[in-house]
Amino acid sequence: MDLISKGWFSEVQDDLWPGQSFSLKVKEVLHKEKSEFQDIQVVETETYGRCLILDGIIQCTTRDEFSYQEMISFLPLCCHPNPQKVLIVGGGDGGVAREVVKHPLVKEVHQVEIDDRVVQVSKKYLPSMACGFDSEKLVLTIGDGFEYMKNHKNEFDVIITDSSDPVGPAVSLFHESYFELLKQALKEGGVVCSQAGSFWLDFDYVKKTMKGCSLHFPKVGYAVTSVPSYPCGHIGFIIGSLDANRKLEKPAKKFEKSEIDALNLKYYSSDIHEAAFTLPRWVEKHFYE
Amino acid sequence: MDLISKGWFSEVQDDLWPGQSFSLKVKEVLHKEKSEFQDIQVVETETYGRCLILDGIIQCTTRDEFSYQEMISFLPLCCHPNPQKVLIVGGGDGGVAREVVKHPLVKEVHQVEIDDRVVQVSKKYLPSMACGFDSEKLVLTIGDGFEYMKNHKNEFDVIITDSSDPVGPAVSLFHESYFELLKQALKEGGVVCSQAGSFWLDFDYVKKTMKGCSLHFPKVGYAVTSVPSYPCGHIGFIIGSLDANRKLEKPAKKFEKSEIDALNLKYYSSDIHEAAFTLPRWVEKHFYE
Repeated sequence: MDLISKGWFSEVQDDLWPGQSFSLKVKEVLHKEKSEFQDIQVVETETYGRCLILDGIIQCTTRDEFSYQEMISFLPLCCHPNPQKVLIVGGGDGGVAREVVKHPLVKEVHQVEIDDRVVQVSKKYLPSMACGFDSEKLVLTIGDGFEYMKNHKNEFDVIITDSSDPVGPAVSLFHESYFELLKQALKEGGVVCSQAGSFWLDFDYVKKTMKGCSLHFPKVGYAVTSVPSYPCGHIGFIIGSLDANRKLEKPAKKFEKSEIDALNLKYYSSDIHEAAFTLPRWVEKHFYE
Repeated sequence: MDLISKGWFSEVQDDLWPGQSFSLKVKEVLHKEKSEFQDIQVVETETYGRCLILDGIIQCTTRDEFSYQEMISFLPLCCHPNPQKVLIVGGGDGGVAREVVKHPLVKEVHQVEIDDRVVQVSKKYLPSMACGFDSEKLVLTIGDGFEYMKNHKNEFDVIITDSSDPVGPAVSLFHESYFELLKQALKEGGVVCSQAGSFWLDFDYVKKTMKGCSLHFPKVGYAVTSVPSYPCGHIGFIIGSLDANRKLEKPAKKFEKSEIDALNLKYYSSDIHEAAFTLPRWVEKHFYE
């Protein structure tokens, strides 16, 4: 599969975002393989640094990945008053692990990634993300997240699902039954966060996923972050809490600006936490009213 | 200038956003001309409705334009306690006029657009925006905004500059001297709002423009809105107030949700107003500290 034409990689996906495409100018293809699960490419771009592409879809670029990784990590972590034990499902590039281990209350992080080749390729070509795997707090398991959770019930304070889009290997991570499994793996008052696409794209799909989540979680919210290399320039997260009294948009743990800087957070702050849950009127109405 | 290849229009601009490009699949080119000031194209896209392109840059699509038009209008209008008389500079598609006249306190709107061909083309091909020109509150002048303001001092409560990007005809609208002119055209306590690009792109340019504004306005802020068809998927606005006590992020005029819906605002709300000024930590630090 050759995705690059005249020096540009173009992300054309007729199922997921028909009629629109984002392109990055490529300096060099650093790596290309077909693993057991997917096509893996790493390219050096002209202006977005290095870019990981799975099955033709941009997963992250070193220029803007911090916005995604910080938000998918710190939004749920800060929705929990004491997130000691965390599970990451997916996240093979290591960026989410890098962020989660920063949180001062987090003691133990477990990660299950299905495709070891993504981990190995990231260690070689994306060290600024894969450094997340070096933490002493982290235990990495190569395997299936579903199977893993079936064997680890009532264990985690926070579970983060850092998946690719709902096609191919990740499709089951958006089903209602997945949220049931997440709930069982959580301790009382636990919090989950999943990548959930853009409200500009499949609006009804986001709403359906939120409904699936709300069958098992009494509190469910949707928050967004700005990521230029993702379709429509942003991405949303579905966050669910087992604590019915939790106000998701108000961080349970607030960090002062000086703490944020000391943690080397470039995007997340307690103000951004609250703003991320504030949705355009038409979205708010459709999702919550 | 042929901008369309294999049925896709691609927005390649090496000066403004090198190494990245957004593309839209085109069904039909509806209009193409070279006016005295710029290349004008209107295309029917596969999934973004109709799209106005000036000098190769997407100005608006009928799918997502409301986010831009509502925010560039209601952010400054709601930063003013009583915005009776408003000036729009640019805005030839009519979308900003359509939004500004909705505000119940606005009595009189003047608009100065330099290129009559944009107005005429929009009336023909973009009636859902150009309907803004039909309001009885609106007086449209074809001419130069600089000249117009030199002859209208101390007249307006709010001035909105809906320009193209800082290349070509719009470049002078980003200079410090432009903010001086705006200030002179305002009444006491007046508010200005200008399109100001993305913090993911020319960060220093945004900061420089804010500095230019702050030489003449005691209160200056930067707010963003999500627009998938703009570079990086969002766009920022610089807002300046002559009232040193005004907190820009707190609307001076708050609308209830029911009022928002009655005004047919799909993006803007008083909550979104506040969230729009909340910036990622690294941007906040760079712009304000």
